[in-house]
Amino acid sequence: METLSTSKSHGGSQGVYRHNSKTTNCTMTFAVFIPQQAKHGPCPVLWYLSGLTCSHANVMDKGEYRRAAARHGLIIVCADTSPRGPDVPDDAENWQFGSGAGFFLDAVQQPWAKNYQMYSYITEELPELIFRNFPADRSRQGIYGHSMGGHGALTIALKNPDTFKSCSAFAPIVHPSTADWSRTAFSRFLGEDKSRWDEYDACNLVENGHRFYEFLIDQGSADGFLEEGLRPWLFEDACKKANIPLTLRMQEGYDHSYNFISTFMGDHIDWHAKRLK
Amino acid sequence: METLSTSKSHGGSQGVYRHNSKTTNCTMTFAVFIPQQAKHGPCPVLWYLSGLTCSHANVMDKGEYRRAAARHGLIIVCADTSPRGPDVPDDAENWQFGSGAGFFLDAVQQPWAKNYQMYSYITEELPELIFRNFPADRSRQGIYGHSMGGHGALTIALKNPDTFKSCSAFAPIVHPSTADWSRTAFSRFLGEDKSRWDEYDACNLVENGHRFYEFLIDQGSADGFLEEGLRPWLFEDACKKANIPLTLRMQEGYDHSYNFISTFMGDHIDWHAKRLK
Repeated sequence: METLSTSKSHGGSQGVYRHNSKTTNCTMTFAVFIPQQAKHGPCPVLWYLSGLTCSHANVMDKGEYRRAAARHGLIIVCADTSPRGPDVPDDAENWQFGSGAGFFLDAVQQPWAKNYQMYSYITEELPELIFRNFPADRSRQGIYGHSMGGHGALTIALKNPDTFKSCSAFAPIVHPSTADWSRTAFSRFLGEDKSRWDEYDACNLVENGHRFYEFLIDQGSADGFLEEGLRPWLFEDACKKANIPLTLRMQEGYDHSYNFISTFMGDHIDWHAKRLK
Repeated sequence: METLSTSKSHGGSQGVYRHNSKTTNCTMTFAVFIPQQAKHGPCPVLWYLSGLTCSHANVMDKGEYRRAAARHGLIIVCADTSPRGPDVPDDAENWQFGSGAGFFLDAVQQPWAKNYQMYSYITEELPELIFRNFPADRSRQGIYGHSMGGHGALTIALKNPDTFKSCSAFAPIVHPSTADWSRTAFSRFLGEDKSRWDEYDACNLVENGHRFYEFLIDQGSADGFLEEGLRPWLFEDACKKANIPLTLRMQEGYDHSYNFISTFMGDHIDWHAKRLK
């Protein structure tokens, strides 16, 4: 692991790191905020997954998470959203597929399968790297994300309730297997066997018996992707039927941007901190 | 004035705007945050000036000012740091001069004088545009900035104590007429008549009799520009001799980046709000 930069922030340290991933077969970059409480022992760790087109940097620059994370003594890991590089196949014409759009799944179709293994990367390789290199407490992990990263957070939490104790999302894609902007990616990454698609669809996972402790979701009412791409009411229905507690807050007038995310970032971090302490 | 974007944030609105400036003879872009309190009447306005290489966008993306501004009901205006565009002369090889480096002065040398009129732009044209278009209270204005923008804030406050009631800075250039990274710009913009330089040098302005109510300055101890470019102790000496109250806080381990600025942004906004209410 190579340190690209570190910079003091809110008493802790915001770093950017790079490593050669065996899972995605390329160089991966990620950001980690370490609060000053880590001097005194391992801290809970909160994983943030970003949306389409984003890298680790968007939330690091615009997410405004450090103030609240510093107050609670939380480590924040900001992962990338896909493999990248000259040797990684991509579709440069399509922002909803390929580079910046890995959908946190393990592709089985070629040529994508060699690199697009973001589910395994986020749940296996990156955690091992984090626990080896940072004072992070493996027994206290939460996960959250935005849009495609909200989809990632919900599906990863539902499949790994022993690993993650808390999960929340900003404007998540809750039913990607039927949404216009994600169906193409599912088809190209996973092929036409729809049982594979179910494994990466929060609504279908709940319907198929997966459970989690509870969820918090914030959704802006002025979000241009709300009706076609996001549709949080579908997840609300699924959770209701499955008796999974879900707090879904429709936030009047907010859009899909980091102005929305950063407004409610403090609430989400408070919420996770309460459950990870 | 053209609205490029608006987005709800912390209950208020973050907008980006563009207009044709008669002062700088080019199109200028700026950002304005309007808190929700503005629905009930004019709000105090706090002007933020950015550092070398920055536009209006750096602090808008990374400054984390909206939470505190929303709490206090402050309007925040983020200005650009220079004229820009294909018709504006520049020195593309030099990041300390020209585009992104207008030093908040009125150039007198050609070919710069036609566009590089940032002092007049910030103190005259942009305020008129703001007061015409936004619910900003002309009688309650503060100014602050970072690095070259800290220089801008200090010098503009010292020359306009009737306009600005409060002034603070993050890592300001306090004595640009003798600092390596600003002398070249002063020479090219202002020529060799050093009395012109004094007008844009905070230390010299104080020495020459200009006064302000009080200042707050935060400075990171790990800032790579501290010893050569910034040297806040020179301004501390000048203020001491002139009996101007200055709170200079050396912040251990902080660098020159927005990780430093965003850590102390809340403190600065609290400080201004107290003086503008």
